[in-house]
Amino acid sequence: VKNKTAISPARGSLSQQRNSLSDADGNGGYAIGIDVGGSNLRVALADTQGNLLGKWSASTRETSSPEMVVEQIREGVNSLLESNSISPNSLIAVGAGAPGITQVDAGIVVATSYLKGWRNVPFRDHLESALHVPAVIENDTRLAAIGEQWKGVARGIRNFAFIAMGTGVAAGIVANGELVRGTNWTAGEIGYMYVPGASEEVAAPGAPGSLESTIGGEGVRQQWLRVCREAGMTDVPTVKATEIFEQANANNRLAQIVLDRTARALAYGVYNICLVLNCECVVLGGGVGMSPVLRDATQKILDQYVEPPACKLVISKLGEDAQLVGAIRLALEKAEAVPST
Amino acid sequence: VKNKTAISPARGSLSQQRNSLSDADGNGGYAIGIDVGGSNLRVALADTQGNLLGKWSASTRETSSPEMVVEQIREGVNSLLESNSISPNSLIAVGAGAPGITQVDAGIVVATSYLKGWRNVPFRDHLESALHVPAVIENDTRLAAIGEQWKGVARGIRNFAFIAMGTGVAAGIVANGELVRGTNWTAGEIGYMYVPGASEEVAAPGAPGSLESTIGGEGVRQQWLRVCREAGMTDVPTVKATEIFEQANANNRLAQIVLDRTARALAYGVYNICLVLNCECVVLGGGVGMSPVLRDATQKILDQYVEPPACKLVISKLGEDAQLVGAIRLALEKAEAVPST
Repeated sequence: VKNKTAISPARGSLSQQRNSLSDADGNGGYAIGIDVGGSNLRVALADTQGNLLGKWSASTRETSSPEMVVEQIREGVNSLLESNSISPNSLIAVGAGAPGITQVDAGIVVATSYLKGWRNVPFRDHLESALHVPAVIENDTRLAAIGEQWKGVARGIRNFAFIAMGTGVAAGIVANGELVRGTNWTAGEIGYMYVPGASEEVAAPGAPGSLESTIGGEGVRQQWLRVCREAGMTDVPTVKATEIFEQANANNRLAQIVLDRTARALAYGVYNICLVLNCECVVLGGGVGMSPVLRDATQKILDQYVEPPACKLVISKLGEDAQLVGAIRLALEKAEAVPST
Repeated sequence: VKNKTAISPARGSLSQQRNSLSDADGNGGYAIGIDVGGSNLRVALADTQGNLLGKWSASTRETSSPEMVVEQIREGVNSLLESNSISPNSLIAVGAGAPGITQVDAGIVVATSYLKGWRNVPFRDHLESALHVPAVIENDTRLAAIGEQWKGVARGIRNFAFIAMGTGVAAGIVANGELVRGTNWTAGEIGYMYVPGASEEVAAPGAPGSLESTIGGEGVRQQWLRVCREAGMTDVPTVKATEIFEQANANNRLAQIVLDRTARALAYGVYNICLVLNCECVVLGGGVGMSPVLRDATQKILDQYVEPPACKLVISKLGEDAQLVGAIRLALEKAEAVPST
């Protein structure tokens, strides 16, 4: 596998997964997967087997309107097609994920606090107009669940949850082999879950929920600030959640308090999900969730539960590619070009 | 509709829902629904439209072995067929529910703390041998969910939970229109859920879980005892959970404390389920769960949640018939005689 990275000085950066001319199976065409985030836009090109041929990314910090993002997507898609010497005619479908509530059937991004000005955006239509292929959209966390089920640690598993733990906390739920989207497309919003030790306050509109306030990236940093100040520290260093967990692993007593509290709240959240779904595993993803220290501390608590037993916690295999792989899977399903794997 | 009740002095009691000779649609045959409980066995006869033609019940307090219960079931079925002048040849299938873990595919009751000596019981085979028709078994709470979906308040609803709140607390989960049974058949064991205000202890094998210890019938009585003793009462009257709720409604201050705590813990449990599934409604069943006072107090708390909003709490329409109706539905599905309703 040959890797090369070319930075487009204008906006996007391109990275090739492999030499498409020699490796790609282009007989069935190609699909595009898109992940629209609050700070980054990512676009990936894949063949019908789901092999990633190239990725492209750009910042969305100054281009958050739907129209501007779609224009960026067009640029990324063209860049990926060109660098892989693939004709636009070989593109068969596109799948895209966005944070927040997504009406899959109508193709509308209803609301997201992560993207300014996105409210009832007919994102699927925008994509189809810009790229001239069928498009499908979905909530980004659900896409990650699909990605892990197709190519990651949840392969062939019919009951599981994918928990995305970064700034936000949410889950993609799979039961009986199918995504659970719910009545109003909000299934999996576990950041609002109430567990012992977390806040009992009612979440204000736009504000993070109880569980997210405790175990999300910002929640962990707030815990750290409190614990350090209570210990008499006046100048608390600014650190990331994962760094706090690493320090706990290196026997920093204050960091251990934060790790214990975070692991306990996460364990309650995971166990509550298990009790509802009796899932085979829970996959941890996202910048905070992929910490092996956090996983181990949480699993240790979960292992105490015997009746009914808790499930296994597994760290995401696909990492930040999970959403893109899920988007490509949905695109292939839309184009009725799903491989038998 | 004509109702008559005949008490069999030996063991069972019989009640006729209607005159089967004039009303029943017997062209497609008849199905039997069974609910095996820790204190009572109930058997119902229905036509293929799910109209209940008669019910029979007996105590299981002194007959808890599987063999004895199957013998009682045979007696109940014969009694129902005879009193409705139906030939055993017209019976097409039987469905049965039991508390605890039920392996539906193998037809085995794995374990239940409510029935002495029931451990890995091939209950489906027992029923087929005794009644000479195809049989299907399922966890009783899941049957109640099916019953409410077919003939009750969850008709046509594709995402909901049925919460059975009596001595025990458990849920039957329906997502994407399908029952969720989980990897080890334990989906819906929400009696073990951890919510703010409930115990954080690890449940010992055979002991009730955290949520059940707070909001189950015995949990509510224990709350009542504690609250009354804290208020200086030395002789606390023994009352049922629903009576405590009624007293709260009549402005008994101590009863109101118990109602508030119970409603709050139930609201957290219901909201946590909603966050996972985004269900359209949660149906409350069981002796404690069907209290309108409890429902109203809990709904009031749930209505505070706006992002995402909580679902509607609805009291079971079928009441204690829910399991039987669900058992009949599964029996008809097994016999491929499901009506189009």
